[in-house]
Amino acid sequence: MKLWKKDIESSAKVEQFTVGRDLEFDIFLAPFDVQGSLAHTAMLESIGLLTAEEKEAIHTELKAIYRTMENGEFEMMDDVEDIHSQIEFMLTEKLGDVGKKIHSGRSRNDQVLVDLKLFMRSEVKEIVEGTKALFDRMTALSEEYKSVLIPGYTHMQVAMPSSFGLWFGAYAEGLVDDLNALHSAYQMVNKNPLGSGAGFGSSFPLNRQMTTDLLGFEAMHHNVVYAMMSRGKAEKQLASGMASIAATLGKFSMDVCLYMGQDFGFLTFPDELTTGSSIMPHKKNPDVFELIRGKCNRIVALPNDIAMLTANLPVGYHREMQLLKELLFPALEDLKACLEMAEYMLQHIKIKNDLIDQDKYNYLFTVEEVNRLVLSGVPFREAYIQVGKGVNAGEFKADRKVNHNHEGSIGNLMTDAIRASMEKQLNSFNFEHWEKRIEKLVK
Amino acid sequence: MKLWKKDIESSAKVEQFTVGRDLEFDIFLAPFDVQGSLAHTAMLESIGLLTAEEKEAIHTELKAIYRTMENGEFEMMDDVEDIHSQIEFMLTEKLGDVGKKIHSGRSRNDQVLVDLKLFMRSEVKEIVEGTKALFDRMTALSEEYKSVLIPGYTHMQVAMPSSFGLWFGAYAEGLVDDLNALHSAYQMVNKNPLGSGAGFGSSFPLNRQMTTDLLGFEAMHHNVVYAMMSRGKAEKQLASGMASIAATLGKFSMDVCLYMGQDFGFLTFPDELTTGSSIMPHKKNPDVFELIRGKCNRIVALPNDIAMLTANLPVGYHREMQLLKELLFPALEDLKACLEMAEYMLQHIKIKNDLIDQDKYNYLFTVEEVNRLVLSGVPFREAYIQVGKGVNAGEFKADRKVNHNHEGSIGNLMTDAIRASMEKQLNSFNFEHWEKRIEKLVK
Amino acid sequence: MKLWKKDIESSAKVEQFTVGRDLEFDIFLAPFDVQGSLAHTAMLESIGLLTAEEKEAIHTELKAIYRTMENGEFEMMDDVEDIHSQIEFMLTEKLGDVGKKIHSGRSRNDQVLVDLKLFMRSEVKEIVEGTKALFDRMTALSEEYKSVLIPGYTHMQVAMPSSFGLWFGAYAEGLVDDLNALHSAYQMVNKNPLGSGAGFGSSFPLNRQMTTDLLGFEAMHHNVVYAMMSRGKAEKQLASGMASIAATLGKFSMDVCLYMGQDFGFLTFPDELTTGSSIMPHKKNPDVFELIRGKCNRIVALPNDIAMLTANLPVGYHREMQLLKELLFPALEDLKACLEMAEYMLQHIKIKNDLIDQDKYNYLFTVEEVNRLVLSGVPFREAYIQVGKGVNAGEFKADRKVNHNHEGSIGNLMTDAIRASMEKQLNSFNFEHWEKRIEKLVK
Amino acid sequence: MKLWKKDIESSAKVEQFTVGRDLEFDIFLAPFDVQGSLAHTAMLESIGLLTAEEKEAIHTELKAIYRTMENGEFEMMDDVEDIHSQIEFMLTEKLGDVGKKIHSGRSRNDQVLVDLKLFMRSEVKEIVEGTKALFDRMTALSEEYKSVLIPGYTHMQVAMPSSFGLWFGAYAEGLVDDLNALHSAYQMVNKNPLGSGAGFGSSFPLNRQMTTDLLGFEAMHHNVVYAMMSRGKAEKQLASGMASIAATLGKFSMDVCLYMGQDFGFLTFPDELTTGSSIMPHKKNPDVFELIRGKCNRIVALPNDIAMLTANLPVGYHREMQLLKELLFPALEDLKACLEMAEYMLQHIKIKNDLIDQDKYNYLFTVEEVNRLVLSGVPFREAYIQVGKGVNAGEFKADRKVNHNHEGSIGNLMTDAIRASMEKQLNSFNFEHWEKRIEKLVK
Repeated sequence: MKLWKKDIESSAKVEQFTVGRDLEFDIFLAPFDVQGSLAHTAMLESIGLLTAEEKEAIHTELKAIYRTMENGEFEMMDDVEDIHSQIEFMLTEKLGDVGKKIHSGRSRNDQVLVDLKLFMRSEVKEIVEGTKALFDRMTALSEEYKSVLIPGYTHMQVAMPSSFGLWFGAYAEGLVDDLNALHSAYQMVNKNPLGSGAGFGSSFPLNRQMTTDLLGFEAMHHNVVYAMMSRGKAEKQLASGMASIAATLGKFSMDVCLYMGQDFGFLTFPDELTTGSSIMPHKKNPDVFELIRGKCNRIVALPNDIAMLTANLPVGYHREMQLLKELLFPALEDLKACLEMAEYMLQHIKIKNDLIDQDKYNYLFTVEEVNRLVLSGVPFREAYIQVGKGVNAGEFKADRKVNHNHEGSIGNLMTDAIRASMEKQLNSFNFEHWEKRIEKLVK
Repeated sequence: MKLWKKDIESSAKVEQFTVGRDLEFDIFLAPFDVQGSLAHTAMLESIGLLTAEEKEAIHTELKAIYRTMENGEFEMMDDVEDIHSQIEFMLTEKLGDVGKKIHSGRSRNDQVLVDLKLFMRSEVKEIVEGTKALFDRMTALSEEYKSVLIPGYTHMQVAMPSSFGLWFGAYAEGLVDDLNALHSAYQMVNKNPLGSGAGFGSSFPLNRQMTTDLLGFEAMHHNVVYAMMSRGKAEKQLASGMASIAATLGKFSMDVCLYMGQDFGFLTFPDELTTGSSIMPHKKNPDVFELIRGKCNRIVALPNDIAMLTANLPVGYHREMQLLKELLFPALEDLKACLEMAEYMLQHIKIKNDLIDQDKYNYLFTVEEVNRLVLSGVPFREAYIQVGKGVNAGEFKADRKVNHNHEGSIGNLMTDAIRASMEKQLNSFNFEHWEKRIEKLVK
Repeated sequence: MKLWKKDIESSAKVEQFTVGRDLEFDIFLAPFDVQGSLAHTAMLESIGLLTAEEKEAIHTELKAIYRTMENGEFEMMDDVEDIHSQIEFMLTEKLGDVGKKIHSGRSRNDQVLVDLKLFMRSEVKEIVEGTKALFDRMTALSEEYKSVLIPGYTHMQVAMPSSFGLWFGAYAEGLVDDLNALHSAYQMVNKNPLGSGAGFGSSFPLNRQMTTDLLGFEAMHHNVVYAMMSRGKAEKQLASGMASIAATLGKFSMDVCLYMGQDFGFLTFPDELTTGSSIMPHKKNPDVFELIRGKCNRIVALPNDIAMLTANLPVGYHREMQLLKELLFPALEDLKACLEMAEYMLQHIKIKNDLIDQDKYNYLFTVEEVNRLVLSGVPFREAYIQVGKGVNAGEFKADRKVNHNHEGSIGNLMTDAIRASMEKQLNSFNFEHWEKRIEKLVK
Repeated sequence: MKLWKKDIESSAKVEQFTVGRDLEFDIFLAPFDVQGSLAHTAMLESIGLLTAEEKEAIHTELKAIYRTMENGEFEMMDDVEDIHSQIEFMLTEKLGDVGKKIHSGRSRNDQVLVDLKLFMRSEVKEIVEGTKALFDRMTALSEEYKSVLIPGYTHMQVAMPSSFGLWFGAYAEGLVDDLNALHSAYQMVNKNPLGSGAGFGSSFPLNRQMTTDLLGFEAMHHNVVYAMMSRGKAEKQLASGMASIAATLGKFSMDVCLYMGQDFGFLTFPDELTTGSSIMPHKKNPDVFELIRGKCNRIVALPNDIAMLTANLPVGYHREMQLLKELLFPALEDLKACLEMAEYMLQHIKIKNDLIDQDKYNYLFTVEEVNRLVLSGVPFREAYIQVGKGVNAGEFKADRKVNHNHEGSIGNLMTDAIRASMEKQLNSFNFEHWEKRIEKLVK
């Protein structure tokens, strides 16, 4: 049931190979395909390519289909080529030839492009929400445990005093910058490609600003060749933003796994959130965080996967761009699941309170002593040598009091400032703008 | 239905996240899990941990299960944790407590390791066969079209005469070297990890040489910590071998797509093997080769994906190694499909015969003229300048006769030597060795 | 001459290995190290750790050193450990013990962090300028050649009419979005890490807002652990922005190389901008664009290189972060050179005017015919079939007039709108803010 | 001083950009360029393109130049385009027009190809030697400390008893497999491309088997197009082999850094092999192993860098292949330095003996207890539950005796078998074959 096919039958072998896993992913695009068609047909009416009645009939059917999607009742048909064909087929069944007219002034590439943009825009919103929830949990933990000291490591060697407050707060602040990276992707996916045809425009008098407005896009990709060129580029940009969050989350997971081991012993989780071993009855394994680390490292590699897929392809559409879906879509699911699981696990984290008192952490406090000498007038280099001699002679005694009060240090975590940065970052997305437009379009 | 779980219930949320897509891939491991268990239990009997009767009962059931797999009747149960648990469950249902004994002296990691090795070894065989079929097609085409000249390009500029014979033959020879890269992976996956436990061995008096022999492995991973460490390493090695084939196939596909365009017009395919456009009635798109190119570039990126997943993990098993399956398994399917489709397409390729006569290819023959002058006694640098002046003055006339006869050139493709290299490479795998052992084990 | 070393001599072998290529890159950081020290010492005075006289003496010397850098007279000493040590050494030579005090309240990591941020901020400015120059050239060419048609390709097959106007314009618009990606990196590198010590703050009453203001940073990294964690993260973010520009430039170079070949023949360059061959007197090779393509593809891989270097490292400084310099610094030089060379080459590009008239491009115009029929009332699917029949029968006649007038199409390139997007993007950087602050600091 | 250039001057700007860092790397190729020219000219004489006297004169001069290289007296000239031009220039200065004849029947690409193959072949030998030295050190340490127990970790959790013997031995065995991966690259670089011209052969009656024999190559790349296609492919294959070694070495370095921290405290190094901190007088940082880890991770990313550079390039030479040198050459230096430094550091490693006695390692021995019960007749699942109950009740008492005797376990390290595998691997390289040929050629 291919709508565009020529008289000649494609070999079934070729068809199976070329369709691949596409249908599996097209279900994700379904509601966005309807949104795009609603906007496109409204525009077609405005330029006289549909009558008001035709447009009205099409809109009524499209909205009915949309409701089945909202209700979870929509299903892909077995013998359909793709989601776009199915919706056109459903319309044609109801409306006859009028249904076919939704394709006027559009190509399949055009339609896929706008569906993907709308889909990615919506995914960004979900990722931002998941990131915000994790951020809130981390800042709360940072405040809750701000007075619990832990060793700070450099070169994986005990270095200077740190705290759970600093540790949680650092990753929270990192998430703010990660959302900044994601915001750059958001601006790329929040642009309207519709009207670019197969990438070279058309002789139809399309009104691209109108569909831009109806779909709530911030702007359009002006040049039609560039609109096509945004395929792959938008996905890579989004992957980079995702990779930024994933790198933060993966690094945090590495810390958790390390700190949960018996040699560090900084933290743990309830038994029901850890996993056992088939041969070791004592094991409590941090599988969730290991898998977050692994899934996040896969996402860290995603921009490179996309780059390799698209490297050195000259201008214009190439069929392998279809494979971008199977790279991106599962990664989106994974990232959202990782954010959710990390937040869930942190609800139940158990912190060890008194760990800094162990002898192995004595030398954490040498810098404190050096600085105490400096503040009392000894030149830095001399203070350094003096304390170093004590260390070498095994005579250094640690006073475990820490008096760090400057901005961002143990005694002054600046949680409010970090939260304010997050609020500013969140506001920059302005999801409401398109949410209102879309709501109006589909009602 | 977890066989190893502690009294405490894991949260369903954690379980869903940690199991992930594992069951989807475990079905691929099913027959190899039975093979491993047959060898392991035979060994357990030999060291007195199973009685002859127990071993006999277990083998009878395992072989029955194996036959259901061979007949395509085996199915994964819904509520089972993994393939290993299912098979143990099936045994226990039939044999009671005796069924549980197949786990003695093994850990889950151990079992997964050996299943994966056996699986990858078998996959290598299929890839080698697919590569050989494509090689045969390419060498046949090289011979068939050895007298059809095409331009040879450097810097994407018309450079010197080449031929379809050279072009097909070059990629065929490339596949021989690719199999050499794959052979290195094969030696890595053809080593027995069984008996390494959770990566640290055990107090059981295991006979690891015996399972090595029964399963037809070339050798064992001696050190048990290294056996564990081979997880991820074997997959990466295999991915590198796959990437080598994929790079050759991807590059060839790029050539095909380019040469099929109207500007080159070197070759084409029957309509039913190409794809049309939803808006352009004249289009004949090389979608199959575009998708081969894309899928191959994904495989080219696979070693990096695996490297990123495993980077900087200290010694010992980590749970994210489970994710290696979802990286590797679909890539194996893709590579086999690409090899098959490329061979299938080449059965139907149509070659343009007289393209070299076009004016735009005049300058292809300047080197021929330079060399003719050199062979007649003119020093090379002078001949070069003389012909260059003719070119610049627009007076260069091409004599389209080519007289290349040295080894590997247009007139002497050395197809027999290339085929002999392939034979030598194929023999190095010696799949028969383990095929015979496995056949004996499962009958 | 290590300022911090212990009584014990490090092995020369170890020293040579650990210093590596660091000095080679430190010269790039020199002026920024002085800027950082000026701000730090001004702050030290404000909190009473330097007297007004000490600060004055230090500032006088630092400014003198800065001028030698501006004049190109500054040189790295042979036996110095790094740039920070050299400047401290120069100060101490002039000022005695006072010189040593510039290290108070700072660690080496802290100092490197702020130097790198200032350096990268400055590099972003240069990249933006190079990108803008190329953008201007491309938009000018887009306007100049807007009426020259070229084939538009999909699947590398002749598809629909395009134009040099669309082609140049598409890449120009792409550069605007690339600067958006770079802007996200800019916000990351325009934050002050100074005062984070070795990553855990200190007991000195540092005023971090003051150095933030003096150095013209947009904000500070609040959390000191996060300030340290920004090492590697900032570089990766910058690399992603660079990779975005590089991907656009690399793709454009691929087009140029392809279009300059004899089979396309769309464009060329003067002889003195191309390269010859040692054996082919007719060759005019596009080496510059091949090298741009290659250098850009290296930059496209840079974020992955950085990710691999930093993957799975737990929180805290690790020595290999030093290697980030040898990844990033040459890539910055390469990108700037590529932008400059591309712009230079495009000054001299020669466009072929009449290429669309060739017979091989007949089918470019089938969509025009389909659309003409649609606009005259024929349903799309019927028009498609009708034209398709003509193509199959070899009877399709192309009318080479193109009438595309909607937004972003051949007849309506929207160059003004694209230029306005660029202006808006440029303004978002606001380089003047810190340029003024730095000017004030060093005068 | 370009030997091949046309009448027209290339712009200096273009020349600077295109030459890039090439000269910096060409010095590495110098002796191999002479080797290639000796073989090529001997062959030219055999087919009548040089007289016996001409060949004799050329050989005398080339051997004289070669000796200056062996003595370290050879230098690159400032104004020369590349190493090939310099040697031709030196010959011409001495011999006049006869000197120019060494270029007959060769192109520059051809010459670079054979130089690179000879260079890479020689580098493989050095890497093999460095790997062997490290292997010897590791197996010696494995034997020396085979009775010192350490915890074995899974999921970074204390799991089962391991030993320094197992730990060192595992990495040693890993190096054997890494050399197998390198051997696959070796077979790729040990093939003769000479005689392929610019990638399309020539009308000269070259005898390629003769140069193959003279240069001691194992075989030739038969197809001339494939010979050219091996550029980039050989480098990637070599990079994969290097990456395999690097991954092993990088993982080992991660372990060392972790184990040297105060929380593990398994091992340390003398002060002079560690590094201090500018603010922390107690620090003993494992900078060498951190840098090995970092440099190795860069090498792990190298195959991907090469893949990105060459992705989707159609058949034929492209200028960016020149950039392969700047990717590969420094990585070779780095890998050799890492191997050497790792071996040097391990000469001085200090092992902690009694660490297993710490309370935190009690649960290491639960599996021992489970297995003891199993061997005494308790079914595995019951023994597991019984010991698990003891652990949960805090009543588990560890008996720290370990009785692992099967192949590859703590009590049976199989060092002899591992050493035998290494010997077999080493013999497969057969470096002597070409060393003898080259010696004969240059004397």
